Amino acid sequence: MKLASLSITQLQQALAQGDLSARDVARQTLQAIEQHNPALNAWTAVTGQRMLQEAEQIDQKRRRGEKLPPLAGVPYAVKNLFDVAEHTTLAGAQLFAQRPAAAQDAWAVAQLQRCGALLSGMLNMDAYAYGFTTENTHYGATRNPRDLTRIAGGSSGGSAAAVAAGLVHFSLGTDTNGSIRVPASLCGIFGLKPTFGRLSRSGSHPFVASLDHIGPLARSVEDLTQVYDALQGADPTDAFQAQQPVQPAGTTLHAGAEGLRCAVLGGYFATWCNDDARAAVAAAAKALQADAEITLPEAELARSAAFILTAAEGGNHYLPALRSAPQQFEPHSRERLLAGAMLPAAWYVQAQRFRRHFQQQVLPLFRHIDVLIAPATPCSATTVGQETIFINGQSLPTRASMGMLTQPISFLGLPVCTVPLPTASGLPIGLQLIAAPFKEHLALRAAHALQQQGLTLPQITGMETP
Amino acid sequence: MKLASLSITQLQQALAQGDLSARDVARQTLQAIEQHNPALNAWTAVTGQRMLQEAEQIDQKRRRGEKLPPLAGVPYAVKNLFDVAEHTTLAGAQLFAQRPAAAQDAWAVAQLQRCGALLSGMLNMDAYAYGFTTENTHYGATRNPRDLTRIAGGSSGGSAAAVAAGLVHFSLGTDTNGSIRVPASLCGIFGLKPTFGRLSRSGSHPFVASLDHIGPLARSVEDLTQVYDALQGADPTDAFQAQQPVQPAGTTLHAGAEGLRCAVLGGYFATWCNDDARAAVAAAAKALQADAEITLPEAELARSAAFILTAAEGGNHYLPALRSAPQQFEPHSRERLLAGAMLPAAWYVQAQRFRRHFQQQVLPLFRHIDVLIAPATPCSATTVGQETIFINGQSLPTRASMGMLTQPISFLGLPVCTVPLPTASGLPIGLQLIAAPFKEHLALRAAHALQQQGLTLPQITGMETP
Repeated sequence: MKLASLSITQLQQALAQGDLSARDVARQTLQAIEQHNPALNAWTAVTGQRMLQEAEQIDQKRRRGEKLPPLAGVPYAVKNLFDVAEHTTLAGAQLFAQRPAAAQDAWAVAQLQRCGALLSGMLNMDAYAYGFTTENTHYGATRNPRDLTRIAGGSSGGSAAAVAAGLVHFSLGTDTNGSIRVPASLCGIFGLKPTFGRLSRSGSHPFVASLDHIGPLARSVEDLTQVYDALQGADPTDAFQAQQPVQPAGTTLHAGAEGLRCAVLGGYFATWCNDDARAAVAAAAKALQADAEITLPEAELARSAAFILTAAEGGNHYLPALRSAPQQFEPHSRERLLAGAMLPAAWYVQAQRFRRHFQQQVLPLFRHIDVLIAPATPCSATTVGQETIFINGQSLPTRASMGMLTQPISFLGLPVCTVPLPTASGLPIGLQLIAAPFKEHLALRAAHALQQQGLTLPQITGMETP
Repeated sequence: MKLASLSITQLQQALAQGDLSARDVARQTLQAIEQHNPALNAWTAVTGQRMLQEAEQIDQKRRRGEKLPPLAGVPYAVKNLFDVAEHTTLAGAQLFAQRPAAAQDAWAVAQLQRCGALLSGMLNMDAYAYGFTTENTHYGATRNPRDLTRIAGGSSGGSAAAVAAGLVHFSLGTDTNGSIRVPASLCGIFGLKPTFGRLSRSGSHPFVASLDHIGPLARSVEDLTQVYDALQGADPTDAFQAQQPVQPAGTTLHAGAEGLRCAVLGGYFATWCNDDARAAVAAAAKALQADAEITLPEAELARSAAFILTAAEGGNHYLPALRSAPQQFEPHSRERLLAGAMLPAAWYVQAQRFRRHFQQQVLPLFRHIDVLIAPATPCSATTVGQETIFINGQSLPTRASMGMLTQPISFLGLPVCTVPLPTASGLPIGLQLIAAPFKEHLALRAAHALQQQGLTLPQITGMETP
């Protein structure tokens, strides 16, 4: 039975009916990773022993006829900035390679274990989560399963590639400025960046505390929603989550988009993308009856302010290591981090002040709109090593620009579901479906409507043997 | 009838019984301000016409036999950083003297008007709220009603002096690092710095958005509590308040301290004060059966971090004016603000990170303790112009050091009720009664117990004619 052709629900039915054991799932997954990862470079560590042990526990429950937990037997992997007990948390950084192993799992990983999911390993990323391409100088570039000559996007590039290749049903990523949405867009899968503060970040290596989010990537809206529900819950040890109201889990997907008030984001979001992205937005707008176009004033400033918060908090975080071991830093990021550490505090304070101002300008839009539609990336995946993209008549640096449409939205803290659409070039591009704070279910519902209508890209059910 | 001898409740009974009209209250208040303010220098503007109009509205209600609102006919005044319609908001700064008048009242002032209170005017402060002495170079020093040769404390010095002199029943102040608690301590009155984010700051001139609080000052715990209750309520336009849960108003004061678990703050808070302060803490500890002593680890670091947040946010706020009109700045603060604007962002980020760390260290204490006791100031009021105080064997700068015991507590965002105790020198000193976030009622209850037991300082019922 081809695992990648099954949804999470179908996989669990197969387990319940005895067509498949959790051990089968684990062994097939590990075998497929062994076969395909050399070409993809998505996994930086495989946790085979743990996966087989987790599978054994599920199979014991099956043999005893116990009720299985909600993600029982579902294979997954996590970005290598999540703590996994007995493994060193890399956060994509050579700097951390010699550190002691984590004493315990991150909150989200422990939660997924409680839900019965099977951890296959840890996934490649841009060093420190600072980048949009997963071209990691030390651990290599992760390749896009849709076209191995192309980038997977970043910084959760391994998380997107592993899922897009059909090797695991879902993965965990993090998103500070677009690091779930950009690779989901370029690899052609679904991703959810929840509301800022909604999911616990405990045990994930921080980058920019003011902007970091964790979230799932998956191959369908149903799978994505099931994982998202499993990740919810109050964690008082997470200082940022604790400031937010805890919402009940249990997201319901309706069959259609009736009653959803959708609009297209114009202005900045229509300007800084290519025709493929515009065509995808138009197709989704038609399907979601989004007749209105809305402009976010000062979206450029929001991106600039997000850059300042990122550079300053990232710079603060790495300043001791920049002083003691600069040679161990990712060359793509060393100077950015040094510059960030030297920004004036007055700029940082101004960026935080602007954030509150911008939120106060934008949030009232959601009185009349449920879901805003925008491209997730300016274009589809570039080739590995490609330094520039050509957008809106300008040549822009690839590494910085792939996130230009995601940055203003995460700066607002809004929940976004990314959906993959086909383009004329044959490569996928993702759309952001953006909702009001704590209204993830509306973004998921819009995504589901697009999927039901057949607008979203089919998923890969089997990688070709390289 | 001597207004200053009446509590708010007694004043309202007198109004209800017709022993007194609101007009009488307003006229007596305005007359007393005219007589005593030249010696005190507490008011920078008197709103006589408005006060008489507000009184007339109350008297009309009385004549019609309508139910009077909760603070009907109670005279008050506000620190001159609160917007009052048709008046220029000074924030203690010559810089703002030529600005247009405010279009509307601050949220708190509008709320007090709805509650029937009578606004007598605006009160002196350290420029920008940056200081602990209210020695304002442009608007003069405010004098302490307990001893006119001494400072009132700051930055809400006018707010404390006006109330301590018995000229108004209460006032509004703001507290960023101690600006309610320090002047309440030095003038011998009660003050409440509520939980960070609890009361709306809309329409109050900001200084340090991360630390600013508004709060009342009054002459008894009952009066303080009544005003505090009137100031509660949700204000969605205040970005910081909106992050907090809105609690119901209606604080109940119990007769005693039974069941309250109190402890003394030792370490830093016992070291950096004189014997008067220690004796006051010991008296309160005995009355509240506070046998245990608790040490806050890293209180010095908390003070340093509060300084960094203050300098950086204050510097950011005033940077445009520092560039264009440096000669208009308060000499006591110009260089501090310039230095703050040039701090590195990495320091600011580190201070915010430490804040969360410190909160996580301290908040668990409140599982076993309801109220922590500490001095509000290292010593009683110094003379106007006195540059240094001698504490713990060291000579320290007065202006910076008066807040050294309040800074770590507001940095935590905890609610504090300040109560005035007598000292051997004859001057008052205030104690901080500190509770867990959103547990103002416990701090107020402890304060009430001390007042009921006769430990707190008697209030001035009539200023001597100068």
